[in-house]
Amino acid sequence: MSVEDRRVKRLPREVREKQILDAAVRVFSEHGYHNASMDEISEVAGVSKPMIYAYLGSKEDLFAACIQREANLLMEAIVSGIDADAPPDMQLWMGLRSFFEFVGSNKQSWRVLHRQAISQGGPFSEELLAMRSRAINLVDALLVRTATKRGMDEHTQKSTEAMAAALVGASESLADWWLDHPAVPTRAVASWLMNLVWMGFGDLVEGNVWTPAEH
Amino acid sequence: MSVEDRRVKRLPREVREKQILDAAVRVFSEHGYHNASMDEISEVAGVSKPMIYAYLGSKEDLFAACIQREANLLMEAIVSGIDADAPPDMQLWMGLRSFFEFVGSNKQSWRVLHRQAISQGGPFSEELLAMRSRAINLVDALLVRTATKRGMDEHTQKSTEAMAAALVGASESLADWWLDHPAVPTRAVASWLMNLVWMGFGDLVEGNVWTPAEH
Repeated sequence: MSVEDRRVKRLPREVREKQILDAAVRVFSEHGYHNASMDEISEVAGVSKPMIYAYLGSKEDLFAACIQREANLLMEAIVSGIDADAPPDMQLWMGLRSFFEFVGSNKQSWRVLHRQAISQGGPFSEELLAMRSRAINLVDALLVRTATKRGMDEHTQKSTEAMAAALVGASESLADWWLDHPAVPTRAVASWLMNLVWMGFGDLVEGNVWTPAEH
Repeated sequence: MSVEDRRVKRLPREVREKQILDAAVRVFSEHGYHNASMDEISEVAGVSKPMIYAYLGSKEDLFAACIQREANLLMEAIVSGIDADAPPDMQLWMGLRSFFEFVGSNKQSWRVLHRQAISQGGPFSEELLAMRSRAINLVDALLVRTATKRGMDEHTQKSTEAMAAALVGASESLADWWLDHPAVPTRAVASWLMNLVWMGFGDLVEGNVWTPAEH
């Protein structure tokens, strides 16, 4: 055993796992699941292959662990970005902005989470569906609170879950579009979606836009 | 060769191919790509396996042909449902209504197109991406026409492709939600999305809704 190996071994397990997962997200997002090699992940992580297998299992397990971690980080970023005491439009804006900020500063995560997980199918797309459900529930809860407070009619109240599903789909699809248009600033993308779902296209063509209230 | 075989053989090739594709869409949507068997497709279609292979190739080729056909049918349904002389809100409404009517009366197509194609990955998800691009271009063209006519500012005009991507994602996601909530009428789903994207949630909580102009 080399000196370096012994030094590395002293790191606590969670630190080692983080190194492995960081490396795996990078390698999976660059090469895709099928073409990613455990050799490259081992090299990037600076952790031996046997240790990766011991800590996080097979390549399939490792990919699933990446999706789970990135999905949790994304959901935490969104939830912690929302001030539950703010008015509904500001809460929606905070949530959208946090989502696009996360995607913007974690493009590799998003590639793994969304594009790779979708294109690999099977168990991975189920992990993704579970994350989508959590996101839909979060948006639904916000819309229900708003609808109840404002005394929206019963018919519209019934539609909140459907609208939440539409909004989550719109966010995902726009984030995907953004990967191919990286020059567009985060705030612009978030603001376009906010205006589309809060003001609607009918208002936008009339020149009515939504802007966040000053703090 | 039995009498029945000889009778079947007289059908023109396009009729036979349609029988095969109809059967394949049904079997793929019920069992998924991996679990679907060519035996069952052959039985449902009433066409022998060697003839299926001769006409449409391997199971993979057959699945790709299903996605292509269903994607074309969907796009044709949307385009033919839009009256290009109608006002922009009516055009958007017609497009959305045609989309949900297609999904509602072709739930098997949608399952194959969307869920199966996504969960199988690889070449199938590329077919799906190509269809999404066509849909985004269609919506973008509508938004650009509207924005130009109404003299929308340059900044908003730049956002039309992004908004089109958001709208297509919202439609897909809502259609997916609808598969799990089949009791909701077609018109309700289409109208919820129309209201979300045309009026915006800000108007909806104030009780302002969009309804189609009377013909």
